[in-house]
Formats: sequence, structure tokens, C-alpha cells
Amino acid sequence: MGKNIIIALDAMGGDEAPAIILDGAALVAESKPDSHFLLFGDAAILNPMVEALPSLRGRTEIRHTDQVIAADEKPSQALRRGRQSSMRLAIDAVRNGEAAGIVSAGNTGALMAMSKFVLKTLPGIDRPAIASVFPSAGDDTVMLDLGANLDCDAENLVQFAMMGATWARVLWGRDRPTVGLLNVGAEDMKGHVTIQDAQTILRSADLPLQFHGFVEGDDIAKGTTDVIVTDGFSGNIALKSAEGTAKLYSQFLREAFSSSLLAKIGYLLAGPAMRRLRQKVDPRRYNGGIFLGLNGISIKSHGGTDATGFAAAISLASDMIEGDLSRRLAEDLQRFGSATEPPRQVSVS
Amino acid sequence: MGKNIIIALDAMGGDEAPAIILDGAALVAESKPDSHFLLFGDAAILNPMVEALPSLRGRTEIRHTDQVIAADEKPSQALRRGRQSSMRLAIDAVRNGEAAGIVSAGNTGALMAMSKFVLKTLPGIDRPAIASVFPSAGDDTVMLDLGANLDCDAENLVQFAMMGATWARVLWGRDRPTVGLLNVGAEDMKGHVTIQDAQTILRSADLPLQFHGFVEGDDIAKGTTDVIVTDGFSGNIALKSAEGTAKLYSQFLREAFSSSLLAKIGYLLAGPAMRRLRQKVDPRRYNGGIFLGLNGISIKSHGGTDATGFAAAISLASDMIEGDLSRRLAEDLQRFGSATEPPRQVSVS
Repeated sequence: MGKNIIIALDAMGGDEAPAIILDGAALVAESKPDSHFLLFGDAAILNPMVEALPSLRGRTEIRHTDQVIAADEKPSQALRRGRQSSMRLAIDAVRNGEAAGIVSAGNTGALMAMSKFVLKTLPGIDRPAIASVFPSAGDDTVMLDLGANLDCDAENLVQFAMMGATWARVLWGRDRPTVGLLNVGAEDMKGHVTIQDAQTILRSADLPLQFHGFVEGDDIAKGTTDVIVTDGFSGNIALKSAEGTAKLYSQFLREAFSSSLLAKIGYLLAGPAMRRLRQKVDPRRYNGGIFLGLNGISIKSHGGTDATGFAAAISLASDMIEGDLSRRLAEDLQRFGSATEPPRQVSVS
Repeated sequence: MGKNIIIALDAMGGDEAPAIILDGAALVAESKPDSHFLLFGDAAILNPMVEALPSLRGRTEIRHTDQVIAADEKPSQALRRGRQSSMRLAIDAVRNGEAAGIVSAGNTGALMAMSKFVLKTLPGIDRPAIASVFPSAGDDTVMLDLGANLDCDAENLVQFAMMGATWARVLWGRDRPTVGLLNVGAEDMKGHVTIQDAQTILRSADLPLQFHGFVEGDDIAKGTTDVIVTDGFSGNIALKSAEGTAKLYSQFLREAFSSSLLAKIGYLLAGPAMRRLRQKVDPRRYNGGIFLGLNGISIKSHGGTDATGFAAAISLASDMIEGDLSRRLAEDLQRFGSATEPPRQVSVS
């Protein structure tokens, strides 16, 4: 038996909050007996809901607040005016040491801004990134950044590579993770100057990772590397483009199976195999935007997910806490951080 | 019966050339009795192959050349040293008026560089773009740029919007096509300065299109707009990320259906529906990178496609020729071209 893990939950963030937050927590509580929750939100609503979920009783503490960050609130506004919000108080609980991590399905920009402001970035990290896990033909892949930083310089990209590699080592036990830089072609001379510079650093620097070189958009699903690094603009577009395609395929598949009586019977016979397929590509299994580079664990759940999806995001936080990811990241950055800087020009005076 | 359409084919470009080039042309010849082909490549190889394909006999002229552009040849090198290559001579045939369009499955960069050099860009276009058609839950969508221009300014993006709209109007008969700008969020304030500026122009300018605003990566498969505009870096990553996901799904589906005897029987019963599904998402149906903004029709086929895929690329060229796309584009650019420029600052001196 490990020691208790306390996770702070923003009970009011997300399309179906607080229902799916509590149901998700209950699912995790059933499978992980060491998990405890600090719930931030409206006590009058939350109290009876927790009472109705036996697995949460005695393992959940409710901290009341009326204030909620709206889905369309600007990050700067949330920072100024949201100091008593359920999201902010949940993050504060991590800084205060009351919780070991925080999960929210609320406003992404506000969660990142507040997490950064309250938890601070790790020494050696200029900008935290959002990472997420992708299914692939091989092992899962982790990709970052997915939208925290629209413009990145070479040093940012190299820092993302380091963080992604530490993630793959700690969470997946991959000893010397392979890292690919997302580009429009695999050849060395392809791409704009920023990723050219990042490539140069990654090829020459002594980092605890194996630099694979450039990868393309289809390498995400192929699972060519353990880690894929890109700027937040391209990463967000790759993520959503893949999500959209996956949804379209599922829709076409449903339509095909309901298009004739024979197809329906075929579906029934192939039922167990189809269920395994659905589980394999279930976006809820991959729910959870991982904020990397912060001095603490903060996870963004998809705002439109259900209890199963929210439970996956909590489990992700729980795995990161058990793996002591923040400390491992800080150590790696201290040992290798200086290698992420571009080589200095010798000045001629 | 329309008049004959003559299409120039680079018979030596692509992984399986010349076999799939000729087989693809034969498929088109069978379904389109007006199509004729000018084949550029090694006559000693091509002659017996054409003889063996009855549908091509009497409708195909072979122009001999020994020179071929290699798949890894740099565009600048191809321009300088490839003047007698099958690719270059096929493009020359369009400029000379011997053919109405050219299709190649060869080196993309070389094809773009040569097409631009030989055919020239249309007046009002700074940079040609690569467009492609995507399947969606609604009608098909056309997206550009997919890799010709890694860095784009606002004016480039607005020109892409114009070209995509003309394409959707001419090829699909959509009267006032909707156009979306690919971004990391749909809210007006999202994204970097270039797409903010492009948004401003597209909102205010009098253009023959309906500007929808920002769209996200999953809007490609949703079919939210007729046209999606982005820079070549993000577009290439969106394209390949979608392709990769589609392949992964197909692979998982095959595995599921062969995982048990019942699943195999289920597959047989659902066979016709599954075949329709496969056709619906068949990447060969969507084969063809459309070079837009040139003074002539030039299509890049996927290098690894088969005869069915290459036939789709030829048909695309044929549809563009029948729709007189180049002239329609030139007309639209003449009428609306000045509206694509950013509003001039009044200089204070």
C-alpha cells in the first residue's frame, strides 16, 4: 500500500460540471484505494452529490466557493478577478502542499495562466507546454506543445524535447526516449529556421534522449518516436486534425453498420472485436492535457468529456504524482539544462 | 460530346512509374472518351506498354526523353539541370499549348519550382499554393496551402482564400463559398498576428466569398466550410496528421475483423457496407495536390499511389480544364485582386 494521494479538483469547471467531476472522482476512488480528493466549488450543490456517491464518502473534503471562471473568460481577467474561484483555490492547494496535483475541465487559458502564476515554472524552463498522449500503431506517443505557446524559438523546442523525454522515462519507463521534431518533411534541410536551429542543438547537445530527427504529421499515428516536439500552433492543429478524422471514421463506421440488416447482424457477430476497437481508439482514454514545466502537477481535462474521461485525467495526475514527475523534471533540467541553450557565438572585438 | 482534352503526363515520376502512370491513364481513357495523353519518358519502355493497353491506342503520343528528375533532387538543381527531363518537357507542353494540363507523381518541390518557372504565376498572385480535397461529414472541403509556402503573410493567406473560393465555385458549383482560416481556437482574438491581420482583411474586403471566421483542426473533417486556408507548414501537418489517423483506424479495423472467427463471419455479412465505407474514405479518391495560382493547370499525384489513385489525379486535372479554372481564377483576381491587399497606412510626414 502506498501513501495517500490527495488531488485537488476544480469541481465547477467544464460543460457538465460538477456531475462528471464527482462521478469521475468516484470511478478513480473505486479503483485506487489511496486516492483522496479536495473539491473546490459550491458546497450546497456538492454536499448532497458526494453523499450520494459511497466511494467518495470519507475520502473527500469540500471547500466552498461561489466563484467560477467562465469558459470564455480571458486569462488576464481570470488572473485578476478569479482569486476566489474554484479553479484558483484548487491550484493554491497544490502550492500550499495540501494537494499533490490539480485537475480541471475548465477554461484552458485561465488554467495555464493561473498554474504558471501560482506554481511558477521550473528553473531552466522559459515556457511551460501542454502535452498529451496519442494512440499509435506501436506504443503510445507523447506530443508537445499543443497550444500554450503559438510562437516558439529553438531553445523552447529543445526544452520541450527534454520535458517530453523525462515524461516518457518516468511514466512509461522508456530508458532513453526517442524524440522527433515535427516538420513538413523528414529530410535534414526541410523546414523553417527555428526548427533547423532546434535540430542543430538536439543533434549536438548531450541530453538524456535519443534525437531521431524530423518527423511528419503521419508519424504521430505511426508511433515513430516516443516524443514529438512542435510549436503550440502546429501542435494544436495536428491534435485537432487527428481528433476530427477519428470522429469522422467512427461516424462512417456506425453508418456502415446500420446501413442494412446483414450489416447489423455482422456487427452483432463482430461485437466483442468492435468493442475492443472502440476502446482502443476511445478519445476518453487519452483525455488530459498535461502542463509540463511547472513546479507542480496540473492537468487540463477536455471540457466536454464524461465521467470516464475525467477519471482518465485524474489517473494521469495520479501517475505523475506517484512517479514524482516534478522532482525528476527539475533534476534533469538542473543536470542538462545548460545544454538546451544555443551555442554562443564567439564575439570578435 | 465536348472537344478533346489533351493532358501531358510525366510518365517517369513516382515510385511505380511508368506502370501506374499508364494504367491510370488507361482507366481515365475508358471512362472519358475525349481524353488524350502526351506521355513524356523513355520511348523504349513506354511504347510496348502503351501497345498492351487497348484503350490508350490512338489516343496517346509518346515523346522520348532519357532524363528523369530524381525523388531527392533539390528544386534548384532540377531547374538548372532538368531541362530535358520528362517532368520539365511535360510542363513545357502546357506552356506551348500542346496540352491543357500536366500531371506528375514525381518530386513535389521540383514540380512546383518548374511549374512556377515555366507557367508563371497569375497576375495578382505572389505565391502559388498547393490545395487538396478532404472528405468530411458534410460536403468535401478544399484546403490550402499544404506545403508550398512555409511562412505566409496576411496577403498570401487572403490570396489563398480567393483561389480556394474560385475552385469551390468552378469545380463544385458552390455559389458563394464559405472560407475558414485555420487557427487554434474559433474566438476572434485567438492566434498570432498574421492570421489576425488576414482575418481583418477577409472581414472587410469585398470578395466573392463568405468569410466564416476562424476554424480549428477538427473542422476539416466536420466540413464546417467549403474552403480552409492556412500556411504551408500547418497545412502540411494537418494533412499528414489526418492521413496518419485514417491509416491507423483502417489498420485497427482490419485487426478487429480478423481477431476471431465470429468477427470474420461478421465482416463477410457486413461486406458490402464495409466496401462502401472503404470507398468513402479511400485516400486514392482524394489523390491530387492542386497547384493553384499558376498560369496553367499542374497537378501533383501522391508518389506512392496506384493506377486508381493516379487516375483520380488525372480526372482532377480534366475537371479543372473543363471548368476553365485558370481563366476563371485570372478573372476573379483581376476583379477583386486589389481587395486582398492590407489597407495602406496614411503616412504622416
